[in-house]
Parts: sequence; structure tokens; C-alpha cells
Amino acid sequence: MKVAIIGLGVVGYGAYEIIRDELAPEIEVKYVMDLRPFEEIPCIHAKDINQIVSDPEVDVVVESIGGLHPAYEFITASLKAGKSVVTANKHLISKYYKELYQLSHETGACLQYTPSAGGGIPWLHNLTRTRRCGAIESFSGIINGTTNYILDNMTRTGAAFEPTLKRAQELGYAEADPSADIDGLDVQRKCAISANRAFDAVISPDDIPTAGIRYITDADIAAFQARGLVCRLICHGAGKDGKVSAYVEPTLFAADTLEANVPDNNNLITLVGKYVGRLSFYGQGAGRYPTAHSMVEDIVDIHVGWARDPKLTGAATVDNSAVCHKYYVRGADLAFLGDLAREKMGDGVVTAPVSVEKMHALAAEQLGRGNQVFFAGFDA
Amino acid sequence: MKVAIIGLGVVGYGAYEIIRDELAPEIEVKYVMDLRPFEEIPCIHAKDINQIVSDPEVDVVVESIGGLHPAYEFITASLKAGKSVVTANKHLISKYYKELYQLSHETGACLQYTPSAGGGIPWLHNLTRTRRCGAIESFSGIINGTTNYILDNMTRTGAAFEPTLKRAQELGYAEADPSADIDGLDVQRKCAISANRAFDAVISPDDIPTAGIRYITDADIAAFQARGLVCRLICHGAGKDGKVSAYVEPTLFAADTLEANVPDNNNLITLVGKYVGRLSFYGQGAGRYPTAHSMVEDIVDIHVGWARDPKLTGAATVDNSAVCHKYYVRGADLAFLGDLAREKMGDGVVTAPVSVEKMHALAAEQLGRGNQVFFAGFDA
Repeated sequence: MKVAIIGLGVVGYGAYEIIRDELAPEIEVKYVMDLRPFEEIPCIHAKDINQIVSDPEVDVVVESIGGLHPAYEFITASLKAGKSVVTANKHLISKYYKELYQLSHETGACLQYTPSAGGGIPWLHNLTRTRRCGAIESFSGIINGTTNYILDNMTRTGAAFEPTLKRAQELGYAEADPSADIDGLDVQRKCAISANRAFDAVISPDDIPTAGIRYITDADIAAFQARGLVCRLICHGAGKDGKVSAYVEPTLFAADTLEANVPDNNNLITLVGKYVGRLSFYGQGAGRYPTAHSMVEDIVDIHVGWARDPKLTGAATVDNSAVCHKYYVRGADLAFLGDLAREKMGDGVVTAPVSVEKMHALAAEQLGRGNQVFFAGFDA
Repeated sequence: MKVAIIGLGVVGYGAYEIIRDELAPEIEVKYVMDLRPFEEIPCIHAKDINQIVSDPEVDVVVESIGGLHPAYEFITASLKAGKSVVTANKHLISKYYKELYQLSHETGACLQYTPSAGGGIPWLHNLTRTRRCGAIESFSGIINGTTNYILDNMTRTGAAFEPTLKRAQELGYAEADPSADIDGLDVQRKCAISANRAFDAVISPDDIPTAGIRYITDADIAAFQARGLVCRLICHGAGKDGKVSAYVEPTLFAADTLEANVPDNNNLITLVGKYVGRLSFYGQGAGRYPTAHSMVEDIVDIHVGWARDPKLTGAATVDNSAVCHKYYVRGADLAFLGDLAREKMGDGVVTAPVSVEKMHALAAEQLGRGNQVFFAGFDA
């Protein structure tokens, strides 16, 4: 099997090394394509995507340049030419999910993106495998290492948000602009991909109500700890009777749960299946070799014929009106909660059970007015 | 694809239901074989294994009668006839591992047994999948629900061993004769299967030094808690330079680790891969539908051509001489420890770092003399 790798950054180069050291000659890199020379790599250095997609020997194109463009153009050109595609690009997969599958169905090419949600954790692989033999009822979990590092370290040390974020940036766990992580957009995209795989759905990340941890304080964490609770940023999804609920929010867990004990920048993602019950998957959600390993596993799955396409027949919209639980809410002015506020907790209040749809709408309205509201759901 | 199910007990009947409700007609049960009539099942009720293995339409034989005989005869007859085999029978797989693979290699039949170690958890599947793209360095984990129920409940409630075992028996988590669980023999078999898959080894369960929890007391647990430690019964395996270490023993974890927070009869099994680092898998290690689900996943893996045979080229012996750590040891007479004993801890002592090989040999000698020794290793 011949592979082309587009983009020899941290992950792409790692995938090249694993294929070279572990899988050649059964699986071989025939092309690499990157603006940099990488003269030590003994294969064809493509100047143009057409050079790759017009070669009938190429079976799989690995996209590891990231971003929407030209990754989109490279992936669609590959699928149209009947080349299978492997990528870790969560932004692109979640945005063009339906279109890319329709393309892949037309030519019979495979589309694999296990590292896009979970990094080194074979989450999407196992979600898909479990789905073969019975419905997925729900999923949830820690799927962003940056925010888990921040929340776990704030909890362990009592430190405030800003210095903990700064430490995460120094360690390379957070970007210079941390918005995509701390506002939950990274989790939102992974949640959309997971929901689509779990429920044969075609929902868009933009339709998933998402709250991050930008406004969390050390006082919030202390109030949680006083009640034996630990805060994690969690993706949630559930499917029932053709409807899909999906949302991203800080969530409070009892201190003796697995979620509360996930250290540093690790991830823990859980599915509940009709027959198998709860299954959880723990590991590195990012990093060169874990992510590259997951990418290469996807290539091997295509090689052995395992790759499995979803049906795209499920929900296209998100409905969180029937999911209700209590919330911790804190803000300068909590009058907007009306009679939902039930008891004081630290600097904030605990609400009566309220739908996810309503809580996110209320908070979004306040945030739109510049009222910095932080809220976290209680784990049912 | 046509399937025959031999043995319609708890798990076998569950597998029949999942195939009927989720996979038919793509995968169909053509034969069942059981001493009981099960008249509601509309397929051929075989009286004899030859009726099944002589039918060229049968692709997969599911063995779910348990025990060594006649399961061994049924499985070997199936493999010789070129039929793939799926089983949850850890006793049989661990005992006849090499012989069964040699048979399957002769006829090209597949041998799948994911539910034999981990029940509903796709542990062996993921161990095998990860192994494709890089070495497995080690594995470890909670792979027996009965002992985890006992240890977790003793830790949570402070109860003694006997009433907790009794409660586990009432709940159906422990057998009337609990020896295979509490003496670690169940874990020993799963450890052998896992080590063989992880390291291409062919080691026998009898060669794995194994200590159980039969003699643990509530005072031991209290001494662990006083130091922030939690005890779990753990399988350990590691491979390096062609050598394999493997052992089963009670192990002490810090209270904020995942292992320490695995509740009730659940399992958590971990691998460390060359590229992917630590991956852990959590779920139900037993139970009708989780185990049956895992069995049916194995059938589907054969159907899609995923099943992958190990090489059998690795170690055939176990070498624990280079694995060293501290132990907690308690017994009526600890003189046998000599200068290994370093400090008091509760009713016992903490040793200097000592090899697993030596500690198990010392304890086995004492147990042989009727000196009831309990020991637990410190997680490195």
C-alpha cells in the first residue's frame, strides 16, 4: 500500500517515522509534500496535489497541514480521485462532515479521522466498532487536554486561572491565543464529530451549545471542593428516538469518580452502549507520537479493510430541551435566574433542575450584555 | 455469514439475541447446540459437533459452554474443519494457546476471544490493534470484578473480608467457591492471554507468580488508607529485549489514581505503547450482555476480515528477576523477611525494594508451611 503525506509538521513527521520504522515495506510512503525540503526523506517530494492524486499507485492521502484551506481542497481532490484520506483535522471534518462523506461514497474511498477527536485515544474507532452491534445511548467525557490541565492544577494547587493558563502555555499545552480551548470550541468540534459517529447524525458544531472555562475562579473551585466536587470541561451527547442532544459545559463530578481523577492534560471519554453498558477510554488527547500513532492506525485499518462509513441518516439538528439538571451559576448580577436560584454556594448559587437549552440561552444572553457569567452542570 | 452457537447459557443466549436483533440477516445463527431444547429459537438444533463442522455454510463456531472439556474437542474440531472460533473461555485459551494457534494457522481459520480477558471491555482488541503499529512496553490493571468489588467495598465501608465476600456472593459477583477469584487464578489466566497478545509470547498461566486477596484484613486496608493508599488486585506484564515479566499481586495505588477510583465490580486495564504512551480501558469485566456484546464484536471482526493472529515468536518463559519494588507484608511470623523489613506499617512491615521473583518465592514458601502471609506491592 502506498501513502502520500501532505504536511510534515509535528504529527505528519511522526506518522512518517512510524510508517518507516514499523510498517514498511508493507505500507510505504511514496510521496511527501511540504514547503520545506526535508531532504533526508527518501521518497518523491510532490510540488502539487495533482501529482499525488493522478498516481494510480497511491492508496491513501494523509492530510496533516491543519486549517480549512487548502486542506479542504487537498482532501476533496483526493476523495474525488478515489484515494482514501486520513486526517486529524477536527475543524475541517466537523465543518464539512456530510459533504466529505457524500464524496467518499461516490468513489468508494475511505475517510478516517480517529485522531481528530481524542488524539492518541482510539475513541472514534471504538465508538464506531461498538456501534456495529447495538445502539450508542450516550457519550460524555474530557476530550480537551488544555482545559483539563488548567482545571486539574487549579484543583490540586488552589492557584488562580490566569497563572495556571500561563503555566499551560509555558508547557506547550495551550496556544498563545487560548480561546479555542478555554471557550470550548475545540471540544465543540470533537463533540459534533463524536455525535455524528455515535448516532449516524449530521449535526454541525455551530449548533452545539458550548460553555467554556474562561471565567472560572479559584473561589469557584474552592466552593466545589467544599462539597466534594471536582470541575471538568465535558462534551455530552445522547441519542433517543431519532433525536440528538449535544452540549459542552463545565461539569461537576464527585471526587471519587474517574473523571475527577484524570490528571494534567489527559483525556477520558465514555460511551454507554445498549448492550455493553459504560466503556471509558483514557489516554493522551494530543502530542506528536500519540496522535501520529492514531493516524497510522487509521491507515492500517484502511489497509486491512476495516474502515466503516456512517449512514448519515440520523438527526441534523440538536435538541437539548429534554436534558435537565441543576447548575452552579456565578456572575455579578444573577437576577436573570429569577426563581431558578435555589441556594447559595460559594460566590454563586445552585439552581433548580433546568434544561440545558434554557440554561445556555440564559447565559448567552447575559454574556452578550457583558455580564461575565460562569456556570457548571451537576453530573446527574 | 453463518454462525453456530454451542452452549446457550447466560452469555451464549445473549450473543444469540444480539445477532438476531442487530445483525441478521447479514450474520445469521444457523445452528445452536445445547442439552436443553430452547424451542423458541428458529434454527437447526444440532445434536453433534460433526453436524456443525461438516456444514460448508458455517463460517464461525461460538463456543460458550465453558470449562476445558468438551470445549477443547469442539474448538479443535472446528478449527481443523477451517471454521473460525469465537470464545470467552479464558481457561481453555490460556492453557492451549500455542496449540490452538498452530491449528488455526494450518487451516486459515481465525481464533478470537476478546471477552476472555476483560469481558465487555475491548481490551484484547485494542491491545492487538495498538501492537500493529509499534511495540507494547507493558500492561497492567484491574481485570477481575469480584476482587475489585471486595477491595472497593472494604475500602469504602471499612468492612471485613468475609462479610464483603458474602455480599459479593449474594449479588452474584462471586461464585459459591470463590477460590479462582480471590486466589488470583482468574487474573493469572487473563494475564497470560494478555502477555501473549502483547509480546507475541507463548507463556503458560502456571508460570505467572500469583498472589490473591484471601488473607487481606480490614486492618490492612485501614493501614493503607492512613497513608493515602488503596489496594487493588493487579495483573502486570512487560516485555523488553525478548524477555517477558508477568505477575499477579495486590498492588497499592495513591488515592487519586484511576485504579484507586474504579468502583464495585468494574475493570480498568492499561497498556503502555511505544508511541501512544498510556491507554486505559474501563468497563464491565463480566455480565451477560457486556460479555455477549464483546463476543459478537469478535464475530463481526471475523466477518470484515479484521481478525489478526499473533506471531508466537516471543518468550515462552517468565522472568521477574529484574522487576523490583517495595512491598507491604503481614503475617504471624515475618522473620523470613530477614533484613528486607525496613519499617512498621499497621500490622505489617514495608520492605526494601525486592524483586517480584524473590518476594513471591519467599511468600510461597511461608504459605506452604501454613504461615498465612498477605503481601501487596507498591505501585512504582
